Amino acid sequence: MTQPSRPSYADAGVDVDAAEALISRYAEAAKVARRPEVLADIGPFAGLFELGRKYRDPVLVASTDSVGTKVKLAALLGRYDGVGHDLVNHCVNDILTTGAEPLFFLDYIGNCGLSDDTKVALVRGVAEACRDAGCALLGGETADMPGTYAEGDFDLVGAIIGVVERDSVIDGSRIEEGDLLIGLPSNGLHTNGYSLVRKIFNFGMGGDPASERATLESNYPGLETTLAEALLEPHRSYLPNLRPLPSSSSFHLPSPKGIAHITGGGIPGNVPRILPAGLSARINRASWRVPAIFRLIQDYGGIDDDEMCRAFNMGLGLVLAVAGQDVDSVLAEIPDAWVCGEVVAGGGVEWAT
Amino acid sequence: MTQPSRPSYADAGVDVDAAEALISRYAEAAKVARRPEVLADIGPFAGLFELGRKYRDPVLVASTDSVGTKVKLAALLGRYDGVGHDLVNHCVNDILTTGAEPLFFLDYIGNCGLSDDTKVALVRGVAEACRDAGCALLGGETADMPGTYAEGDFDLVGAIIGVVERDSVIDGSRIEEGDLLIGLPSNGLHTNGYSLVRKIFNFGMGGDPASERATLESNYPGLETTLAEALLEPHRSYLPNLRPLPSSSSFHLPSPKGIAHITGGGIPGNVPRILPAGLSARINRASWRVPAIFRLIQDYGGIDDDEMCRAFNMGLGLVLAVAGQDVDSVLAEIPDAWVCGEVVAGGGVEWAT
Repeated sequence: MTQPSRPSYADAGVDVDAAEALISRYAEAAKVARRPEVLADIGPFAGLFELGRKYRDPVLVASTDSVGTKVKLAALLGRYDGVGHDLVNHCVNDILTTGAEPLFFLDYIGNCGLSDDTKVALVRGVAEACRDAGCALLGGETADMPGTYAEGDFDLVGAIIGVVERDSVIDGSRIEEGDLLIGLPSNGLHTNGYSLVRKIFNFGMGGDPASERATLESNYPGLETTLAEALLEPHRSYLPNLRPLPSSSSFHLPSPKGIAHITGGGIPGNVPRILPAGLSARINRASWRVPAIFRLIQDYGGIDDDEMCRAFNMGLGLVLAVAGQDVDSVLAEIPDAWVCGEVVAGGGVEWAT
Repeated sequence: MTQPSRPSYADAGVDVDAAEALISRYAEAAKVARRPEVLADIGPFAGLFELGRKYRDPVLVASTDSVGTKVKLAALLGRYDGVGHDLVNHCVNDILTTGAEPLFFLDYIGNCGLSDDTKVALVRGVAEACRDAGCALLGGETADMPGTYAEGDFDLVGAIIGVVERDSVIDGSRIEEGDLLIGLPSNGLHTNGYSLVRKIFNFGMGGDPASERATLESNYPGLETTLAEALLEPHRSYLPNLRPLPSSSSFHLPSPKGIAHITGGGIPGNVPRILPAGLSARINRASWRVPAIFRLIQDYGGIDDDEMCRAFNMGLGLVLAVAGQDVDSVLAEIPDAWVCGEVVAGGGVEWAT
């Protein structure tokens, strides 16, 4: 029994002994995401990954991200398994835009009051997604931060490191007028736009949890699942579609000249980022059917088209810029891809319809 | 004017246009932390760092961490410049324990309601500390997360990647009975124990900010500065003491057999992590004077010695395990280092006094 007049570290919300027990559960969960290059059991303060000599002129490619306020949805519904997939897949896609293959991943959980089981569930999701990406889960950190996070709230942050040969880097510089844009469908919102969705449907805003859950577990016109299921759908990884050959980093398919990942800022915020100056992306919005979840959000929130396109991916998760003569072979490799636009003179994005 | 019935993304706390303006301010701040290997201006979704061919058998060493609830102190006092140094230096020390030199760093800010100036101040601190460590600030992410963080609260997370030649990895495996332990002093609490300190002195706990600030800006017996100054003292980087030679990763001084960074868990939680099975660290607590800030915390909080040693570094920031014949040359290279203990048969930590 600890006296109130003699606070201990555990008392203050940080239990060092429990943290050490938790680390062994994390290590167990991370075992599914091993690679032979990981120098295990050494480096208690850091993770070690032997890059070795198999690359001619290796470029390391790195990105960090979080899941955004999709974590509020996970916390509200007690569904912690998917956010690790969201996090890893988002990061995998980010480095994939350069042609890199994933090597390893680091995760960070900041939280207040998550149970050990919940923390392990989060790390297990991260580890499974790393395994699916052929990526090692090399390390991680959990910070118990009473006061910074509200009770039961958390943030999940990750960093990914990949590698690509210098002469295989995809950087958009060869994109020219007349190239075509190929779209790959998203699974849903991926990890962007959740703050707006929470506001529209009024959940995760500090209201009564039972009533917020009822809102989420309802059916809405046009949706084949509950709102919760539609919103929890994990961020799709495009690695299986564009996976570099082992140890080579050259693509199976004719190398795209540029790859844009449609995240915060939507199509207008992301596609122009890969285009050389003087070029514009003319996107044909009639070329795909906007998924029901986006139409529901738009109707329910009374949001105009431009705002929707800035906040959400609208069903377009990844855009490849390819030369006209390569289009057929790319479409043959990726069954659900389609031509969604073309590169024209100009700047930014224009809508073809 | 946005109608309440038509919420926009900006309305929901996420302003995409403002975020893009902020990115250019971040890029400006990050300029101080460049290295020639950074392939700038390509890779809008990821950072690229050309490792190239200068290493014989490179091992990548990675670590991720946050500043813990030291961020509450920064937020309360409006002192955002130092936490970036805390974060980077903590991570630098973690990979330094393996003998690695830092290559690049990624930062993440999760927050609610921080001003752009504050966000830039955080990134500027990170960039300056990266520059001091000879490390590139390769990328970062800011997530505005209303609801997850309270208004004005934030978390600052980082990931560091370094490199060491395979045959120069320091892993503790050569440590043997009779080796000596050399201590390097900490600057103060570094980044551990702040939740307990907040509880003892009752700040950052949601009380009246003016009164909490008054507590922090007071003087206390034994402290030469205000409590705020003592608690904000940045985490010391030990890289200047142990800096690997450029492109070689061999130390100037006789290579330590093991290096422990004294972080969460204190001396008993960290020194044993580098010891082979069957060995114990006998630490002579009389070999250094515990800094005034720790004595103040202990007296004020009525905390016993064991608890103090688990929650705080007690003035010992880094411990090197070295062979007896190397001690003099190590001590000659690091003026403020001292022999703080020895390696004996056993397990864990024992106190010599």
